[in-house]
Amino acid sequence: MDLFFSPLACSMSGRIALAEAGATVNLIEVDPITKRVLASGEDYQPVNPLGYVPALRLDDGTVLTENSAILQHIADEYPEAELAPPASDRLGRAKLRQWLSFISAELHKGLMTPLLGDQTPAEVKAWTAGKYASRLAHLNEKLAGREFLLDKFSVADAYLATVLNWTRATPEIDLGAYPNVKAYLERMRARPSVAAALATEIPLFRAEMERRKVA
Amino acid sequence: MDLFFSPLACSMSGRIALAEAGATVNLIEVDPITKRVLASGEDYQPVNPLGYVPALRLDDGTVLTENSAILQHIADEYPEAELAPPASDRLGRAKLRQWLSFISAELHKGLMTPLLGDQTPAEVKAWTAGKYASRLAHLNEKLAGREFLLDKFSVADAYLATVLNWTRATPEIDLGAYPNVKAYLERMRARPSVAAALATEIPLFRAEMERRKVA
Repeated sequence: MDLFFSPLACSMSGRIALAEAGATVNLIEVDPITKRVLASGEDYQPVNPLGYVPALRLDDGTVLTENSAILQHIADEYPEAELAPPASDRLGRAKLRQWLSFISAELHKGLMTPLLGDQTPAEVKAWTAGKYASRLAHLNEKLAGREFLLDKFSVADAYLATVLNWTRATPEIDLGAYPNVKAYLERMRARPSVAAALATEIPLFRAEMERRKVA
Repeated sequence: MDLFFSPLACSMSGRIALAEAGATVNLIEVDPITKRVLASGEDYQPVNPLGYVPALRLDDGTVLTENSAILQHIADEYPEAELAPPASDRLGRAKLRQWLSFISAELHKGLMTPLLGDQTPAEVKAWTAGKYASRLAHLNEKLAGREFLLDKFSVADAYLATVLNWTRATPEIDLGAYPNVKAYLERMRARPSVAAALATEIPLFRAEMERRKVA
């Protein structure tokens, strides 16, 4: 399997999940500006015509896109890692999908995508921060007294930790106002799989920023 | 089971899926402004603290939120309706989730939510329409020569038909530029389950608009 990623993008959750599973797959870096594989210069558009990461290329050549779908596929591929409730636990699976959808639609796409864009107009950022503040408050309530989103670590935590990590770059969000969320993110950053992913991807992200400056 | 809905909201996809399955569940209308059950005045916040529809209340009282999770739960609850690839078809399920995630994050939350808000600033709408046009172009390509998103009708079609139907209210989007998408929506609107859902929900939506005017 090949996981196409860009440093610190939502694809980092796939890296975390694979590390939790002890799986070895090819991680292939895509430059998000040129939309090319960094090492080879190969065009990424044939892999995902929309140009965004992650994409998971299976051994038969099939490509999966959309992070929530990829994370569930990884969980199913390595069931012994217990990164999702067992398939027989229908309600547990439904709750996992509920969290993945909330993280993807409300937090990632609704809240963070506009705030992270360095070309996004200030009016758009202000509107976004106001509209989606309730989602952080909701998450803060849900995390009260909980270590993970579900009863144990799951791919939803890998995704949430990745998205919350972006708040380092969004001055519009003060995590101090959401203490359970802040404490959760600190716990996740200390988790070996997450700490290792950050240690690998932060230098790659800095290198990406340097390339952008030069270009 | 109780499905909490608001007229023409994404909850309509649950109504369509249930009709396809021939299932009879309670459909409970929520006023999206007052966040109360229309018939009883009951507060909706205890059902979904975020206030949005749909929510699916199971017979044991468990509440599921997030449309993608609810649609997959409905598909699993009525397997004989074949609204999703069978659970044994892992790749088929992954492809279903890929579409559900694309519809939810890219089309619903990314593109349509800002365009539909009557309080959304014009700058936000313009930024959104520009940023997400590529998603409609992508969908248009994917629908070339296909009747459905997967090989047969699935809950992803129920969701996509519901979201595309909103383009009636978004002058920023000209479906004429995406002929396969336009033809798909016309086919879906002619499908009995979708036509029946629209015939039920359009008058309820008009009544909602009337209440808003009065308030």
